Amino acid sequence: MRLLCVLFALALASSAQTSSLPPTNLMPVPVSLQFGTGQLLIHESFSAALTGPHDEQLQHAAQNFFAVLSRKTGILLDNKFSDPAKASLVIHTEQPAKQVQELGEDESYSLEVKTSGAQLSAPTGLGAMRGLQTFLQLVRPTADGFAAPVVTIHDKPRFPWRGLMIDVSRHFIPLDVLKRNLDGMAAVKMNVFHWHLSDNQGFRIESKRFPKLYEMGSDGHYYSQDEVRSLIAYARDRGIRVVPEFDMPGHSTAWFAGYPELASAPGPYQIERKWGVFDPAMDPTQERSYKFLDEFIGEMAKLFPDRFFHIGGDEVNGKQWDANPKIQEFKRTHGLKSNQDLQAYFNKRVQQIVTKHKKIMIGWDEILDPDLPKDIVIQSWRGQQSLAVAARQGYRGLLSYGYYIDLMWPAWRHYAVDPMADAAAALSPEESQRILGGEACMWSEYVSPENIDSRIWPRTAAIAERLWSPQEVQDINSMYQRLATMSGELDWLGLTHNSNYEPMLRRIAGTTDIAPVRTLADVVEPVKDYTREETAPAVPTSATPLNRLVDAARPESDTARNFTNLVNSFVSGQSTTPETKSQIRSALIRWRDSQTHLQTMLDRSFLLKEVAPVSQDLAAISAVALTAMDYMESGQRPPDAWTTQQRALLEQAAKQKAQLLLMVVSPLQKLIEASAVPHPPPVSN
Amino acid sequence: MRLLCVLFALALASSAQTSSLPPTNLMPVPVSLQFGTGQLLIHESFSAALTGPHDEQLQHAAQNFFAVLSRKTGILLDNKFSDPAKASLVIHTEQPAKQVQELGEDESYSLEVKTSGAQLSAPTGLGAMRGLQTFLQLVRPTADGFAAPVVTIHDKPRFPWRGLMIDVSRHFIPLDVLKRNLDGMAAVKMNVFHWHLSDNQGFRIESKRFPKLYEMGSDGHYYSQDEVRSLIAYARDRGIRVVPEFDMPGHSTAWFAGYPELASAPGPYQIERKWGVFDPAMDPTQERSYKFLDEFIGEMAKLFPDRFFHIGGDEVNGKQWDANPKIQEFKRTHGLKSNQDLQAYFNKRVQQIVTKHKKIMIGWDEILDPDLPKDIVIQSWRGQQSLAVAARQGYRGLLSYGYYIDLMWPAWRHYAVDPMADAAAALSPEESQRILGGEACMWSEYVSPENIDSRIWPRTAAIAERLWSPQEVQDINSMYQRLATMSGELDWLGLTHNSNYEPMLRRIAGTTDIAPVRTLADVVEPVKDYTREETAPAVPTSATPLNRLVDAARPESDTARNFTNLVNSFVSGQSTTPETKSQIRSALIRWRDSQTHLQTMLDRSFLLKEVAPVSQDLAAISAVALTAMDYMESGQRPPDAWTTQQRALLEQAAKQKAQLLLMVVSPLQKLIEASAVPHPPPVSN
Repeated sequence: MRLLCVLFALALASSAQTSSLPPTNLMPVPVSLQFGTGQLLIHESFSAALTGPHDEQLQHAAQNFFAVLSRKTGILLDNKFSDPAKASLVIHTEQPAKQVQELGEDESYSLEVKTSGAQLSAPTGLGAMRGLQTFLQLVRPTADGFAAPVVTIHDKPRFPWRGLMIDVSRHFIPLDVLKRNLDGMAAVKMNVFHWHLSDNQGFRIESKRFPKLYEMGSDGHYYSQDEVRSLIAYARDRGIRVVPEFDMPGHSTAWFAGYPELASAPGPYQIERKWGVFDPAMDPTQERSYKFLDEFIGEMAKLFPDRFFHIGGDEVNGKQWDANPKIQEFKRTHGLKSNQDLQAYFNKRVQQIVTKHKKIMIGWDEILDPDLPKDIVIQSWRGQQSLAVAARQGYRGLLSYGYYIDLMWPAWRHYAVDPMADAAAALSPEESQRILGGEACMWSEYVSPENIDSRIWPRTAAIAERLWSPQEVQDINSMYQRLATMSGELDWLGLTHNSNYEPMLRRIAGTTDIAPVRTLADVVEPVKDYTREETAPAVPTSATPLNRLVDAARPESDTARNFTNLVNSFVSGQSTTPETKSQIRSALIRWRDSQTHLQTMLDRSFLLKEVAPVSQDLAAISAVALTAMDYMESGQRPPDAWTTQQRALLEQAAKQKAQLLLMVVSPLQKLIEASAVPHPPPVSN
Repeated sequence: MRLLCVLFALALASSAQTSSLPPTNLMPVPVSLQFGTGQLLIHESFSAALTGPHDEQLQHAAQNFFAVLSRKTGILLDNKFSDPAKASLVIHTEQPAKQVQELGEDESYSLEVKTSGAQLSAPTGLGAMRGLQTFLQLVRPTADGFAAPVVTIHDKPRFPWRGLMIDVSRHFIPLDVLKRNLDGMAAVKMNVFHWHLSDNQGFRIESKRFPKLYEMGSDGHYYSQDEVRSLIAYARDRGIRVVPEFDMPGHSTAWFAGYPELASAPGPYQIERKWGVFDPAMDPTQERSYKFLDEFIGEMAKLFPDRFFHIGGDEVNGKQWDANPKIQEFKRTHGLKSNQDLQAYFNKRVQQIVTKHKKIMIGWDEILDPDLPKDIVIQSWRGQQSLAVAARQGYRGLLSYGYYIDLMWPAWRHYAVDPMADAAAALSPEESQRILGGEACMWSEYVSPENIDSRIWPRTAAIAERLWSPQEVQDINSMYQRLATMSGELDWLGLTHNSNYEPMLRRIAGTTDIAPVRTLADVVEPVKDYTREETAPAVPTSATPLNRLVDAARPESDTARNFTNLVNSFVSGQSTTPETKSQIRSALIRWRDSQTHLQTMLDRSFLLKEVAPVSQDLAAISAVALTAMDYMESGQRPPDAWTTQQRALLEQAAKQKAQLLLMVVSPLQKLIEASAVPHPPPVSN
């Protein structure tokens, strides 16, 4: 029996139609797709052929494609290349991708799947790589075997720069962890890995010219130049550019551990262990700083083939500059009125060095200055307004505001951020072209190699879709459905966002009996935005273990979101079937009773003990919500005093404890408020 | 608050006392342990010192110790070595382990943990490695933080050879998968990795002298000599010897793909794709066979530093020999009466070659022949009887009978097999010394890199305990408790026996909603012993995908075992509390209702469709068992006709379907039979 596939043409002209997305798992959603009837079965005999000019990277990408298809299906398919006449999948390109991948290279592709075979066509090898990822996502088990549905897809990215930044300074992230994250990026068609290689807390790359940078600035946790080359090659095989960032003149304490003479105040310096904005900054007034940077940037420019070079440039507090008479004197003699002017002078000097080494400079918002040439790129953590201002002045820009994945926002909130929205919406077509795209940013104060994947994935896939898919693709329910599927797909790449959850919970529980801690963990989220430090039991440092429930809990609770949707449809009267009520009740009973179980385990583990109050809150408000359900079902109103009392309880439960937020407070509040209205909502029996 | 630890001296003299094992998670159980009061807390400041002679392997082992301790606790502890006066853990050795690890090297150690610090002492670096593993297992979360209890341990292995064999021929197992399994071996103190490198289905190692062996015998799936060296070094750092096996004169089709002139019948030959015993065998009558083997063994003897060299020697069916007149003539002229005699002649020639290259020969049972010198070692797949016979003749032996982990036996069954039991129990002390230990054997017809860990772990830990711990350690409940903990410990090493379960089930379900397939998967086991081929839907080959529920299901269902224990204590009247009954009922209800959910998903996936009959059986017999519970609780007996009918249903449900066994048939049968007895068991209310 063949699955009946629906015929569907995605109408992009009208955003009103996007809620009727086709039944596809594809993420990001392609520009156009049209399903036909039937499917292409994937057997042991599946093979592929590459036609068109030789393209080594595409060849590697096709090998990776076979490896992932094998893992996904469990069918042994090792590099089964055959001649085009016999191949199940023919991949045709017109020209190879550039040896060194460039910004704006054509990434478009067309994919036609028929029952007899599939054809992937792309102007460049880069487009073919994107199409291979689409094909992988199309393959699913069916009643007849693994298969891709008959479909015609035409696709290309909305923005040419779709990046992920990983900060490897605050916590070192080993090469293999980065590599699996590059696989995740490729799966969702991201194309820039922005490698934040230095900061106050660590200098993470070997410099042969200035070895003390990593010898004294990394605690031994750095990447050798061979490792860097291997990562760049790995990224290139996945159609991903690698842009290094060396933050300067601030965020640079780790440089000074080895080279205090670069700083604006005398040393000695040690690697910073805490989080925040710190005083040390390079001395922009001395020529030896520029000589050093010229040699250092020259060395790095040779190592990193990409055209772009990120110099950071953010958050200089100016204290060292203010305290240094020589620097004050320099400002006076050079007519520099403010520290901002002084930094602009520094940026201009650095920009000249970067240009000398044939690179284009990128920096954060603060580097924007009309004196700098128009080819530089501004990466904005401040918002679309900054980008619009820059674009009007002729500068290109990238949005990262709204894409800070360390802030523990839910996926829908990142998904709602559009580089072309707000101030950027008013740009002229020419100015709009200067908005290159955006980057998700993984700042690493609170991530370790163990939990970083769970902070990046699956939420980053929503950002990747925002940057690839047409602007009209906005349906949040569809996004969440596809995100759940995508999360499972990412498992096949070795990402650990799912697999590390239970081991971390087992560590917390101190036993293999993790049921009650899992029940709790499933409905909490870490505190949001920048509140993690202020709510911490002790001042956090880079040595603070990241082994608590706040480190294991997912940034977004699927359980809580689904329960909230259930309650919303119940209290709105949309769904009041016995099944809905039974689902709500059984969740409430589980939460209420789990506490009893957890309570018996508390003495086993200090990591469990700290979350006991959260578990108590969950049990208490679940019990109250059950009573509210009873009131509603009996058609009676609770006494006002009861409702008032429960509101106070909810208010307490909504407060962070152990740096965790109980994400079901809001739906439980809705149940309690619904029970208190004069006329209870319609209740069917 | 400090945890109160019990004082306990493990009395080993009497096996009757072993059921009162101390509350320890240690696996294998040490020879003696005595708990004190209090504990040693493990903080960020934890450090270690090595005293004694320089021992590079021990240094590496200590680095690995820090890495695993870090992962287990989530505390950053990178190689924090300090001077002995300040160290939290002082590791003292009297002499370094041998550069090339030897059979019978001293592996004993003493570990003393006090509240102020710990001391690990061992005559050799090898013993220190074993003690480090014990220390790792002692560390657990407590109410005050991570800690090891105050304890004094003296420990040494019962047998000097505690191995794991992995067959990499039938399915190729990549190097990284082998390495993580070496980590698992080290964790349970195993010390020999037996690498089954060639068989009919693949020749898996680079030979520079005879490149066609791997070029034509491996489909490109082989280990380079550099990779082999890296694996040997990796093993050495974990106190594990590496013994290569090249199976001959049978099990050798893959050799003949490149070198048909070695065979006893004319070629050409192709790599074998099916499973079983095949005809091709080396020609033992031609000198060029021995010339080839001399050069080949010479090359391999240099690559593998271990003293022992395995030549297989099993399962020659003799058909090629019988059909070759030249070979028949040779037998006559040399007075060789049988093919067994001919193989003995071959073995003797090969033994001389092995000896020439300074190695000691090992082979399977079939090689035993009084003409061979007494230094060879017999590995028995036939049983203790074979070993006893060999030992009486002066040969050393290893037991693998009873340790074939591909047969899908439960852990207790392997655990019950003792190398010194049965015929071996009657050996004299001197003869007993010749029983060196044993090896778990992972034959790979039905394992892939994806599921091999779940076939090896955690059950192999039970075999490791049998080979390390005193013979009197026999308590099965204790073993299962510790095995569950050990299974979680092994996760920290990167083993995937737990983490790959859900992804495999998701693949089968074709959706992220795996609840019903998981409910089913949790109570089934793959068919046992050698029935996998005969029950297969089609003749299995090396290309058959291993992606079905039979490949994902665990060899031993914990859920079924725990439920069986629960039912046993209920029907025996040992526990008839309402809680017991409610636990039984809720499991039955879950199994009954899960089928409804599964049924709605069947069209999604062919992999799910095939298991629908098993799910139907589970639902049907669970419903019947619920009725049986009703009868028992009401004090009524069911009509005899009803019971008869249910027996037939159970009989059907007990039969394999989709190569799966429903492991709760037996306890459900007990419930139904209990309801049918004239006087129902006491039922409390």
